Amino acid sequence: MSRPEAWRRDAGAYPFTAEVQTRWADLDMLGHINNVSMAGLFEEGRGRFTSSLQMVRASRDVRWLIAGVSINYLAEGHHPQPVTIASGIGHIGTRSWTVFSAAFQNGVCVATCDTATVYTDKTGAVALPEEYVAKLAEFRIAVPE
Amino acid sequence: MSRPEAWRRDAGAYPFTAEVQTRWADLDMLGHINNVSMAGLFEEGRGRFTSSLQMVRASRDVRWLIAGVSINYLAEGHHPQPVTIASGIGHIGTRSWTVFSAAFQNGVCVATCDTATVYTDKTGAVALPEEYVAKLAEFRIAVPE
Amino acid sequence: MSRPEAWRRDAGAYPFTAEVQTRWADLDMLGHINNVSMAGLFEEGRGRFTSSLQMVRASRDVRWLIAGVSINYLAEGHHPQPVTIASGIGHIGTRSWTVFSAAFQNGVCVATCDTATVYTDKTGAVALPEEYVAKLAEFRIAVPE
Amino acid sequence: MSRPEAWRRDAGAYPFTAEVQTRWADLDMLGHINNVSMAGLFEEGRGRFTSSLQMVRASRDVRWLIAGVSINYLAEGHHPQPVTIASGIGHIGTRSWTVFSAAFQNGVCVATCDTATVYTDKTGAVALPEEYVAKLAEFRIAVPE
Repeated sequence: MSRPEAWRRDAGAYPFTAEVQTRWADLDMLGHINNVSMAGLFEEGRGRFTSSLQMVRASRDVRWLIAGVSINYLAEGHHPQPVTIASGIGHIGTRSWTVFSAAFQNGVCVATCDTATVYTDKTGAVALPEEYVAKLAEFRIAVPE
Repeated sequence: MSRPEAWRRDAGAYPFTAEVQTRWADLDMLGHINNVSMAGLFEEGRGRFTSSLQMVRASRDVRWLIAGVSINYLAEGHHPQPVTIASGIGHIGTRSWTVFSAAFQNGVCVATCDTATVYTDKTGAVALPEEYVAKLAEFRIAVPE
Repeated sequence: MSRPEAWRRDAGAYPFTAEVQTRWADLDMLGHINNVSMAGLFEEGRGRFTSSLQMVRASRDVRWLIAGVSINYLAEGHHPQPVTIASGIGHIGTRSWTVFSAAFQNGVCVATCDTATVYTDKTGAVALPEEYVAKLAEFRIAVPE
Repeated sequence: MSRPEAWRRDAGAYPFTAEVQTRWADLDMLGHINNVSMAGLFEEGRGRFTSSLQMVRASRDVRWLIAGVSINYLAEGHHPQPVTIASGIGHIGTRSWTVFSAAFQNGVCVATCDTATVYTDKTGAVALPEEYVAKLAEFRIAVPE
């Protein structure tokens, strides 16, 4: 869990953003957005991003399974402000892809999230369809060198 | 997000375990334990571990803030089986520590979780009290070479 | 929302009980089990009750839809104590039934819950199968006069 | 749990509305907004209403405790559409008050909710301050005869 690089905290680095409302229930006894709730906010923002890609599931047997989620919490999140969840594609593998996201409140990056998703059918992980690769590539983040 | 090493999937590697019930509400539309819900199950199991350490907060201003959570999902989790959350101390830093956890269902490791916690007071991150370091060291996982 | 009658706070009145763990995440900023979280604890306990009845769904089109939930909060709930959720059948209607539940911590009733469920297929609400009526009748609570 | 009267399903009857986003996580395995999640959406909408009233807590010992929540589910709720939560004051008691709310999606009332809140200090339930009564009265729903 190394700290995120500076460009990960820049909303301009991401091709897609969604504003997600926080709820009072996202707060924990410390009075800030709970870390698991933040994972939920990322799930919602990331979901809106991947929905927007309209990647069709070839059959009912196709499932996208989350293989890994790694979140860095950089500042405390608050309610009732919404969070802006910015997302884009990080890595594109043979059978999986990674979404890079960052959450902002009042312009400050409060957390970053990497999510690895595996493409499966009933035999297990299988190769990404070409259309997926093409679509994911369109939304790939240009990682600064 | 590299895959966890083999020893991370061995319950015997961890000094503390807690059985945490799953709830029907932890399931998502894919019919398995949702990834955010699994983060919640880790929160509960890790919380029971850290509570068991009885590390006193010197004042109301002392807060433990989660700085990072990294989860690998290795197999689908199910309901109504409980999960066994095994935990121990990974790294001990100057102002933070890391808990390593793993979740088991029916003896199979379904996920691993690394959680970094920073020790803060109202000035920000500060040095861990000596008693903390001593207590954390007692529950340190002996990482195989 | 009239207050529950005395017998509703007596665990002995209910034919089924389930012990449901509370989670730290069930607490809200007031430091007690949040009222929505309590609704979730009732969902879990009630679900274990209705699962135990093994009432078969004749087809995929059959769905049980919750039509109403009414909860009285009688005392504050706490963590890490579990809650015991006691349940039984209240009313049995033509196309619906009501589960009466009560939640206990340390022997004290902290809340009661009435849940009305409607039996539906793709045409909407339909008559309860005879087997359902028979099974529900077995677990009917003997309401004191 | 009698069915709500017709006026309860009319957004125009309520003095306050809030648009609350739904989340994918609000869905359950039936593919609709889960009934407990709907309770959470009501909590959020009602919270925005009561926050808007700016009723000051005289001291830290003053707490508003939820005494009862009664929800009627009238139609299935969906995602990703937001819900509009309309709220107003129902009854004003000596030591408690009731908020009447209704949830709408695409103009259709999907659920109604009555929430009773008790005003307490460390001695238990106490009389509502006069300012509370005056403020609540301002937002009282004119119940049709």
